[in-house]
Amino acid sequence: MPSLADKTVLDLGCGFGHFARSCIDQGAAKVVGIDISSNMITYAETENSHQNIEYICAPIEEADLGERKFDLIVSSLAIHYIKDYDRVVKKIYHLLRQHGEFIFSIEHPIVTARKGMGNWVKDKDGEKLHWAVDHYQLEGERGRHWVIDGVITYHRTISTLVNTLIENGFILEKIVEPQSTDYGLEQMPKLINEQRRPSFLVIKSKR
Amino acid sequence: MPSLADKTVLDLGCGFGHFARSCIDQGAAKVVGIDISSNMITYAETENSHQNIEYICAPIEEADLGERKFDLIVSSLAIHYIKDYDRVVKKIYHLLRQHGEFIFSIEHPIVTARKGMGNWVKDKDGEKLHWAVDHYQLEGERGRHWVIDGVITYHRTISTLVNTLIENGFILEKIVEPQSTDYGLEQMPKLINEQRRPSFLVIKSKR
Repeated sequence: MPSLADKTVLDLGCGFGHFARSCIDQGAAKVVGIDISSNMITYAETENSHQNIEYICAPIEEADLGERKFDLIVSSLAIHYIKDYDRVVKKIYHLLRQHGEFIFSIEHPIVTARKGMGNWVKDKDGEKLHWAVDHYQLEGERGRHWVIDGVITYHRTISTLVNTLIENGFILEKIVEPQSTDYGLEQMPKLINEQRRPSFLVIKSKR
Repeated sequence: MPSLADKTVLDLGCGFGHFARSCIDQGAAKVVGIDISSNMITYAETENSHQNIEYICAPIEEADLGERKFDLIVSSLAIHYIKDYDRVVKKIYHLLRQHGEFIFSIEHPIVTARKGMGNWVKDKDGEKLHWAVDHYQLEGERGRHWVIDGVITYHRTISTLVNTLIENGFILEKIVEPQSTDYGLEQMPKLINEQRRPSFLVIKSKR
């Protein structure tokens, strides 16, 4: 993460506003948080309000920010709910100042590729044998269970995720496939599975 | 592929020299082909010789090209045999002219991740059920069978492959995960498996 001092930040899929609030705590000048969930925005406005944070309840694709410009646009585990990735990338590019950064995390394509659930293949004793990959090049809808059933995520290949950024003018800065740390393993031993297959992908790019 | 007219090209892992020869046919000014196999270099010098092609028998890491500079450096399915990727990336950067391009293909990390062979998991009738991924974050040696037994390939994550380029000054231009085409499927029906998991990764970057 770059320094947030005096930065204007846009958080796409801000949820309960915890990250928006932490940006202010780290010196950000102004934060706009957008989320499709009115429950989350209501919570954010109650529990994480601040004079320099503005919350907007809207789908990421539809939020109207006019000609406002940001130094940093972040999105944590929201872009895989977006149907039209190219359109959102174009929008984000437009909303960034020159040299502004876009950092987002999503479910890793290795995890989203195979249709259906239960992609840890286990033996008869329930031991995990390996992770199952299939349908990798077939981009599009994948059903998932998340809090409520029926949430749709979209699988895209690594090449689509990266090339769409580059084709729209972004410079790729870094790709991270988060690993379990010693501390994390102590707190949550099942994170050892992150060594076996990556759950998440973080992509950092610059306008 | 960029236009090759009047370009100087370096082919790392040139094998029998077919690509080196095709570069000349496409107008390249000069091609240097390097391969560790003396059999392949002998064949290349016999069957694909040309006054503007120079073949060198050496490991990619050791080949001494001094201060020569190239417009394009290519490598087809050779970099996964390299133990020290960072060192080779630095060498390639040094050998490229400003704005020169480096295009290479390797086995896809999805394919190299799991230790051991037989990563298509099949049912009792031999039908392919899915591709098995494991050990993704454990980079390093993977045994493979290729022509002769005992050839060692090295597994690296997508993030390592991409970030090492960027950290060494390259600008990422494109990632390709080749898919089966209609023509390819006609010639070789089993290419349909490329839709299920990508075998190869091509990365194009620019100095």
